[in-house]
Amino acid sequence: MTRNQFSDGCAFVNGDYVPIAAAAIPILDMGFLRSDVTYDVVGVWNGQFFRLEDHLNRFEKSWNRLHMSPDISREGIRNALIECVRRAGLQHASVNMIMTRGISEKGNRDPRLFKNRFYAFAIPYVWLAGVDQQAQGVHLVIARQTIRTPTRAFDPAVKNFQWGDLTQGIYEAYERDGYTVVLPDADGNITEGPGFNVFAIKDQALRTPASGVLQGITRQTVLDLADEQGLSANASLLSADELRAADEIFLSSTAGGVIPVTTVDGQPVGNGNPGVITEKLRKRYWEAHDEERWTTSIDY
Amino acid sequence: MTRNQFSDGCAFVNGDYVPIAAAAIPILDMGFLRSDVTYDVVGVWNGQFFRLEDHLNRFEKSWNRLHMSPDISREGIRNALIECVRRAGLQHASVNMIMTRGISEKGNRDPRLFKNRFYAFAIPYVWLAGVDQQAQGVHLVIARQTIRTPTRAFDPAVKNFQWGDLTQGIYEAYERDGYTVVLPDADGNITEGPGFNVFAIKDQALRTPASGVLQGITRQTVLDLADEQGLSANASLLSADELRAADEIFLSSTAGGVIPVTTVDGQPVGNGNPGVITEKLRKRYWEAHDEERWTTSIDY
Repeated sequence: MTRNQFSDGCAFVNGDYVPIAAAAIPILDMGFLRSDVTYDVVGVWNGQFFRLEDHLNRFEKSWNRLHMSPDISREGIRNALIECVRRAGLQHASVNMIMTRGISEKGNRDPRLFKNRFYAFAIPYVWLAGVDQQAQGVHLVIARQTIRTPTRAFDPAVKNFQWGDLTQGIYEAYERDGYTVVLPDADGNITEGPGFNVFAIKDQALRTPASGVLQGITRQTVLDLADEQGLSANASLLSADELRAADEIFLSSTAGGVIPVTTVDGQPVGNGNPGVITEKLRKRYWEAHDEERWTTSIDY
Repeated sequence: MTRNQFSDGCAFVNGDYVPIAAAAIPILDMGFLRSDVTYDVVGVWNGQFFRLEDHLNRFEKSWNRLHMSPDISREGIRNALIECVRRAGLQHASVNMIMTRGISEKGNRDPRLFKNRFYAFAIPYVWLAGVDQQAQGVHLVIARQTIRTPTRAFDPAVKNFQWGDLTQGIYEAYERDGYTVVLPDADGNITEGPGFNVFAIKDQALRTPASGVLQGITRQTVLDLADEQGLSANASLLSADELRAADEIFLSSTAGGVIPVTTVDGQPVGNGNPGVITEKLRKRYWEAHDEERWTTSIDY
């Protein structure tokens, strides 16, 4: 029996499909040398994309914000994503789409003159926190040493690879026995963490930071599902103290869905177990992965 | 006659020397996917590195700040840089050294467990502004739409590829008929621009922003040369208004040295020509490229 050469993942590079381990980008691509790039990640669950068009919409908005104009169509992008998953034969996948500034021609440094480049890859589904971990809940730390890059410097609504602040935050989390970290802004309000948004529940009402964060698709899904459940759910300012005083806290991410938080800075959230509303939303989140309104099937 | 395959540039990737056009990094390297990377660029002029050990010192400090621990020695790095230039046969080169977090093994997301990777490449000398352009001076714009990423989010003293703010600034410069841009901080003080530090001269005294900027090697060279010339030169806070009121302004960068600025936001600096002290320092800067204290010869 021949092992599928794409089983560890399949990438779309320069118009070709290649095994993920062989996928590479030119060292001179400004997507690397200047992190002049935007990306998106969409999940595949049980052989179906979840909210693919929403991810494509955001991706397109992001590259427009960066003044990019790729010569691949939305259809071409969608087809490449589907084909990466199909070739890898993955039923559960994290599917990355990436648009870079590209490579300087003849020493040109004017970003307006670059030919932008599209890359994609599908790999086995990535968990920010696995199922077992989610059952227990994770330990969250509010960073003290690092703030999130402010919107006025770079708008996190443009999904980007500039994770220097978030990565430093991860080191701080580990130093302080946390599982992961959320960064405050310069005024001490909560923003987001490495790959996730944050929700606080107080007196049955959900709140998540309104600005200075990525407008997460999972975040939006939670807002949608909460609304359907008749729960109050709003995006607004959320101070660190308000987060600490929450009855329940969870993270939202395409890499794992709704992830309960059971301690903040070492102090228990509520009774120290994943919250009741959180668990209900987590269940609904995965159920929704079978619902036609949000899914796109793959013909393997 | 066979054309040297490395004449457009030579890269050191995975222990091999490859033509620059063939040099690539794995798409999964976190140096790309999370811009989890630091770098440095040293110039070669007339077959000699300029302040190579100073660049190596800063590079080492930068990767230590990112908690990286490469398994290549300083000697190994130095040799790779020299060999890239030698193979490319370049008398005038920009030589890049890059340290990335590396690739996740078995789905691990803990940055402490990655094997860090070293890449290098030498390409023909890159000019931020060419010699003709320098003779005229460049038009500088102080960004209104974008601030520099603050030190509390990510310290620019760690030389990094997170240029999202700087790239947006370049777009603003072009919109406003500037050649390049300098970003203010949140308080309106001057920081730095895409690939350069800024100097203002008022009443014969030089000032350059002290914090929120890369501690440029060319910046240091200017401070050294100014000191030798008996000029007052200090790093301190520099407001946008103080910059506008300067008698002379110049940029400092490994990509071009001392670059005169003749307008700020469309208004002339001094009499609108490159300044006298600026020109003197520019001359001294290039003369210094023959001085033994700062040069390292290459045995082609």
